[in-house]
Amino acid sequence: MGTERIGILGGTGDLGAGLALRWAAAGVPVTIGSRDPERARRRAVEFTEQLPAGSAPLDGAGNLDAARVADVVVVAVPFESSARTVASVAEALDDRILVSTVVPLAFDQGGPHIAQVEGAPSVAELLAAQAPTARVVSGFHSVAAGALTDLATPLDDDVLLCGDDDAAIATVAQLVELIDGATPVVAGRLRLSPPIEGLTAALIAVNKRYKAHVGLRLSRLPR
Amino acid sequence: MGTERIGILGGTGDLGAGLALRWAAAGVPVTIGSRDPERARRRAVEFTEQLPAGSAPLDGAGNLDAARVADVVVVAVPFESSARTVASVAEALDDRILVSTVVPLAFDQGGPHIAQVEGAPSVAELLAAQAPTARVVSGFHSVAAGALTDLATPLDDDVLLCGDDDAAIATVAQLVELIDGATPVVAGRLRLSPPIEGLTAALIAVNKRYKAHVGLRLSRLPR
Repeated sequence: MGTERIGILGGTGDLGAGLALRWAAAGVPVTIGSRDPERARRRAVEFTEQLPAGSAPLDGAGNLDAARVADVVVVAVPFESSARTVASVAEALDDRILVSTVVPLAFDQGGPHIAQVEGAPSVAELLAAQAPTARVVSGFHSVAAGALTDLATPLDDDVLLCGDDDAAIATVAQLVELIDGATPVVAGRLRLSPPIEGLTAALIAVNKRYKAHVGLRLSRLPR
Repeated sequence: MGTERIGILGGTGDLGAGLALRWAAAGVPVTIGSRDPERARRRAVEFTEQLPAGSAPLDGAGNLDAARVADVVVVAVPFESSARTVASVAEALDDRILVSTVVPLAFDQGGPHIAQVEGAPSVAELLAAQAPTARVVSGFHSVAAGALTDLATPLDDDVLLCGDDDAAIATVAQLVELIDGATPVVAGRLRLSPPIEGLTAALIAVNKRYKAHVGLRLSRLPR
């Protein structure tokens, strides 16, 4: 059940970096991927300097190599490039757990809003179509990158997970539990992903209005 | 700014009843509406027996009359009948604040899922189209009816509100604050309503799995 290595596509971005730091600090080896392998390797060196002693190794590679070496592959690229990125590494995703953190987000003069996903009800379902033999789990959408990166402060977040493969969800739930202050909450099937993804647009609007970096907590959940 | 009377369309249902009890207990007169005025009046008598001394009057009427007598009209009918109900009272909604609590919810053997809203991205936007001169605010979707009805226990809920009329949002935010333990959180424009509505399907799935009646709280929100 234990995850041997996590690959993070787009691991040089804010959310990917935060997840990489938290998981390496918790003892799971991480490879951050980027379109530019050199950039990924440089960032991996910088991130490693921020890690406490005793952390697991954190290295960098191109996205395809980051997927090849991992048993859990996290997609943390922007919405616009997410389908293309997953399609470009699909050969490495057979039977792999693929975690979609991608938010369908757009901005205009009215602020953040939910971008139309073409061809699927949610980004997670769109990515599942790009990698039909991967085991897709959707989660981490409402975790603030800034809070993840601040390793000294525990999170205060419930991470809603959904997917159609119960064993894959259980593995990702264990990865959530490795992050101090984060609690996995299993919602159920992947078709529940659209509002879990879309809510982030509303939370970003809340962040702008209240000058905050809010996260999600469920009240009245037995803990 | 103070609300003089709240009308609740579908006020004999679970969520409508809970809101009616909380607001009458907090001192705002409430008229619960139903398709069947006799049923509304009977339920109003039952609800009044549950109210503490000093509560505001709570009475019952047909949906059209419940809209006519109120300055804030809350839609708490099931998704399937919501557009029809609002259309049937649209004549009474000119310049009124119309609060959509309606969740696009469907169930099958796979559990709860998000129902397709025909003709609009969200129920709130669909109802706005039925009552074009009403000032629509979307909110209260994730508040558990059972928690509302238990008057002795404060809620532990953030109520995400969105709408395109800032003064209407401010009025509804005041109504949220009248409910012990509920905090209004303004997300922004009405186009953010789809995930706020849809999230309830995921929370109902969580409730089934964890045997709970969860609500929404935002962490790291300045309070």
